[in-house]
Amino acid sequence: MKALERLEHALRRMPGVGPRQAERLASYFLRAAQGEVEEFVEAVLGVKKNVKLCRVCHAYSESDICSICADPDRDRSIICVVEDPQDIESIEKTGAFSGLYHVLHGAISPMEGRGAEQVKVKELLQRVQNAPVPVREVILATDPDTEGETTALYLADLLHGLVERVTRIGYGVPLGGDIDYIDEMTLGYSLKGRTKM
Amino acid sequence: MKALERLEHALRRMPGVGPRQAERLASYFLRAAQGEVEEFVEAVLGVKKNVKLCRVCHAYSESDICSICADPDRDRSIICVVEDPQDIESIEKTGAFSGLYHVLHGAISPMEGRGAEQVKVKELLQRVQNAPVPVREVILATDPDTEGETTALYLADLLHGLVERVTRIGYGVPLGGDIDYIDEMTLGYSLKGRTKM
Repeated sequence: MKALERLEHALRRMPGVGPRQAERLASYFLRAAQGEVEEFVEAVLGVKKNVKLCRVCHAYSESDICSICADPDRDRSIICVVEDPQDIESIEKTGAFSGLYHVLHGAISPMEGRGAEQVKVKELLQRVQNAPVPVREVILATDPDTEGETTALYLADLLHGLVERVTRIGYGVPLGGDIDYIDEMTLGYSLKGRTKM
Repeated sequence: MKALERLEHALRRMPGVGPRQAERLASYFLRAAQGEVEEFVEAVLGVKKNVKLCRVCHAYSESDICSICADPDRDRSIICVVEDPQDIESIEKTGAFSGLYHVLHGAISPMEGRGAEQVKVKELLQRVQNAPVPVREVILATDPDTEGETTALYLADLLHGLVERVTRIGYGVPLGGDIDYIDEMTLGYSLKGRTKM
C-alpha cells in the first residue's frame, strides 16, 4: 500500500499529528468525495501561491502591504513586535492597540541554535531607522517564556537610543505561556500595564 | 485573507481538527518549503487515484484484489467482519487470525439513520452464498458499542442458516470501546474466546 503509506508519512510531518491521527486523516481523504479533496488541494496550493509576507511588517498578506500597514488610521509611531503572525489576531481582538506590528517569525533560542539572523531583527532595526513617521515606542510582545524573554532583552538593548520608549507587555501575562493562547481580557491588561525596559 | 480562510475552512472538515489546530496546520503549510507542500498534495491525490476497495473484501487496496484475499495461504472458510479498513491491521497484528476479512465500512445506526443498505451487508451475504470455498464460520468483529452490537445481532440473524457458525469476538473486548484502539493482547484474547451467537 505504497500510496497510503506515503500519505500517512506526509501527514505525520504536520504539527500535532501522530501515527493514529495520521491514519484517521488518511481515512478522511479516502472517504471524502473527489470534489472535496480537490477543493482541499486547491486551498493548500492557493495559500502557497497567494499568501506572502507583508513587505513592511512581515505578517501574512495577500497583497504587498498588509491591511494593517496600509490602514491610514493606525498610529504609525508605535510598533508592537510579535513572534508569530497569529499573535496579531489575538492582540487585535483586545482592541487595546492601534499601532503597527512587526513579526519576527520566531524567537531567539540559543538552545536550538537560532540566533538573531534567523528571525526578522535586522528588518525591525532598518524599519525603525528608516521610518517615514518617527517611531516613538516599540512594544515587545514576544511570548512570556525563556526564548521570548531572551529575545525581548536582546531587542531592548538594540532599540535603546533608536526609539524614545522600549516597553514589554507586562501585567497579566502568565509565565511559561504562549501569547497566542491567552484570553483577550488578560492580553488587553498586559498591553495597558506595559512597563518600560 | 481569502486564501488562508479557505484553507482553514478545508482543514476544519478533517476529523479531530478544531479552529486552533486548523490555524496551526495552515501555518505549517505557509512555512513549509514549496517542494514539501507539493509532495503532500501529490500524496493526497495519489491516494485518491490509486487506492480503491478490494473487489472481494472491500478493504483498501491498490490492486483489484487485496493482498490478504489474494494470499493462497489464508483460510478461505472463515471470514472476519469488521467495520473499518483500519481494524484489519489491528487484528493482523494479533497473529490470532488467518482467515479472510469483510469490511462493512460503518455500522448500522438507527440513531444516525444509517441502515443495512449504507454498509456492505448485501455484499457480505452474496459473498457467503457464492463463495468458491464454502464459508464455515463468520466472526463478527464489529466495535463493542451500541452500533457495533446492533450490527452484529442483525448480521447473525441473516447469517444463521447460511453458514455453520456465526461468532462474536468476546473475551477481553471492553464495552464502549473502539476495536481500532485496543491493544493486541486483548484483541488476541477476544478472537480466541469468541462465542457462538
